Amino acid sequence: MTGRFSDAARRAVYEAIHRRRDLREGYTGEPLAHDTLARLLLAAHHAASVGFMQPWNFVLIRGAELREALWKAVDKERRSAAVIFEGEQAERFPAIKIEAIREASLVICVTVDPTRRGPHVLGRSSDEDTDLYSTACAVQNLWLAARAEGLGMGWVTFYRKPDVRRLLELPPHINPIGLICLGPVAAFPDQPVLEQLGWGNRIPLGDLVYYERWGHAEPEPDGPWKGFPEAVRGAAFRSEGEP
Amino acid sequence: MTGRFSDAARRAVYEAIHRRRDLREGYTGEPLAHDTLARLLLAAHHAASVGFMQPWNFVLIRGAELREALWKAVDKERRSAAVIFEGEQAERFPAIKIEAIREASLVICVTVDPTRRGPHVLGRSSDEDTDLYSTACAVQNLWLAARAEGLGMGWVTFYRKPDVRRLLELPPHINPIGLICLGPVAAFPDQPVLEQLGWGNRIPLGDLVYYERWGHAEPEPDGPWKGFPEAVRGAAFRSEGEP
Repeated sequence: MTGRFSDAARRAVYEAIHRRRDLREGYTGEPLAHDTLARLLLAAHHAASVGFMQPWNFVLIRGAELREALWKAVDKERRSAAVIFEGEQAERFPAIKIEAIREASLVICVTVDPTRRGPHVLGRSSDEDTDLYSTACAVQNLWLAARAEGLGMGWVTFYRKPDVRRLLELPPHINPIGLICLGPVAAFPDQPVLEQLGWGNRIPLGDLVYYERWGHAEPEPDGPWKGFPEAVRGAAFRSEGEP
Repeated sequence: MTGRFSDAARRAVYEAIHRRRDLREGYTGEPLAHDTLARLLLAAHHAASVGFMQPWNFVLIRGAELREALWKAVDKERRSAAVIFEGEQAERFPAIKIEAIREASLVICVTVDPTRRGPHVLGRSSDEDTDLYSTACAVQNLWLAARAEGLGMGWVTFYRKPDVRRLLELPPHINPIGLICLGPVAAFPDQPVLEQLGWGNRIPLGDLVYYERWGHAEPEPDGPWKGFPEAVRGAAFRSEGEP
C-alpha cells in the first residue's frame, strides 16, 4: 500500500477521526489485553516528532490507591476551576465528569521530556513548543487507534502539575501533559460530550479558513480558490449507511 | 459502527498511523481537488480541543510570490539553525530539505488563537498550553487523512514567527505553529526521512514505558502488568502481505 488507500480503508480512517470522542464516564473497567495496549502505545510512538525527538513517556497506572490520589488531585482542580466560571457556564460546570480517572481500565500519564536528544533538536530551535506539539500528535494517534479498537479515551488536564509530579515521582523537568483514561465504554455518543452539555457548538469550518493571508475570508473571484468556499460548506462526514 | 471496527477497518487506521511520513521534497505540485482538501480540513477540524475551544485557523496559500517569500523566511531560519549544530550533526544538516514550501500543491499555515472562546476555557485554566495540544491534534488528523488520500505532508517549523506574521498579516496574538506542505508526492519512504538520513533512530518503545510511577521500568513481578514488557517488545506493525 504505497499511495492512496482503497475507498474502504480511506473511509475507516475518516470513521476513526469523526467518531473519536473524549469520554469522561461510562467506562466498564474491564482490563485491556496486553497486546491491545501494546499496539496502542506503538501507534502513539509512531507520531511525528520534531527532529525525531520522540519526547514522550507513558506512565501506566492501574493501582487503585494511586488512582484515588490522582482523582483527588483532579477533583481539587475541578472545584478550583469551577470558581472561575460565572453565569450560565457556572450552572453547567458541575456536569463535567472526572470519574474516568477511577473507572477506566487504566490511566496513562503522558509526559514530555524537553531534554530528550540533547540541547539542540532539529526544528526546535525555532519553536521550543514543538516538543508539546509532537507529544499531542502521539496522543491523537493513541486516540484514533483506541477508537478503532472500540475503546473509549479521555484526555484529562484538570490538575496542578506539581500534584501529579509528586504522586508519580516525576522529575521536576518532566512535563505531564495529560492523564489519559482508557478502556471499554458503554457507548460512544454521536456528538462531543461538551456539545451535548450545551457548553459550546462546533464552529462552521468555513469561518476558520482564510485565503493567502489572514482575514481574507473570501478568495479572489477568478483565482485558484474559486469554488472552494462552496466545497467547504458542502463538506460533511457521512457514516456508513447514511445518505 | 458504534464499537470496535472490523479487522480491515482497524488495519486501515494502523496503516495510516504507521505509513504517515513527514515529507519535505518529492512533491509533484499538481493541484488538489477542492472536495479532497475540504475533506482534509474537516478532518483536522474534528480533532479534540480542550473545552471545545477549536482554537485553530487555516490560512491556505497557493500564490507563487507569497510562497517564495515564505521559502526565503524558512531558508534564512534553516541557515541560522545550521550554525548551532556541530560535529557530525553539522555535516548532515544540509541534507534537510525545505523545497516543499515551493513545490507542494499548497501550503497551509496552521495557527492558534489563544483568545478563542473568551478568557476562561474549560480545562485550560490548569494548563495554558492546551490550545497548542489541541491544534497539534488537528494537524495529526490532517496528516493521517492526507496519508489515506495518498497525499504527502510536511510540517515545517523552521521560521521566525514574526516573519510569518508579517508575510501572512497575522495579528500579533495569533500563533503560527506550522507551515504545512501538502500534495501528491512521488513516493512514501518506508522509514522516517530523518532516520534514513542517519539523524536519529526510533527509541525502543519499552524504554519509554514506566509502571505506576516514573522510573519504574519493570512492573511488579506478580501484579497486573506481569507479561506486559514482553507484549511491548513483541508489538510491531506488519503491513498487508508481510508475515
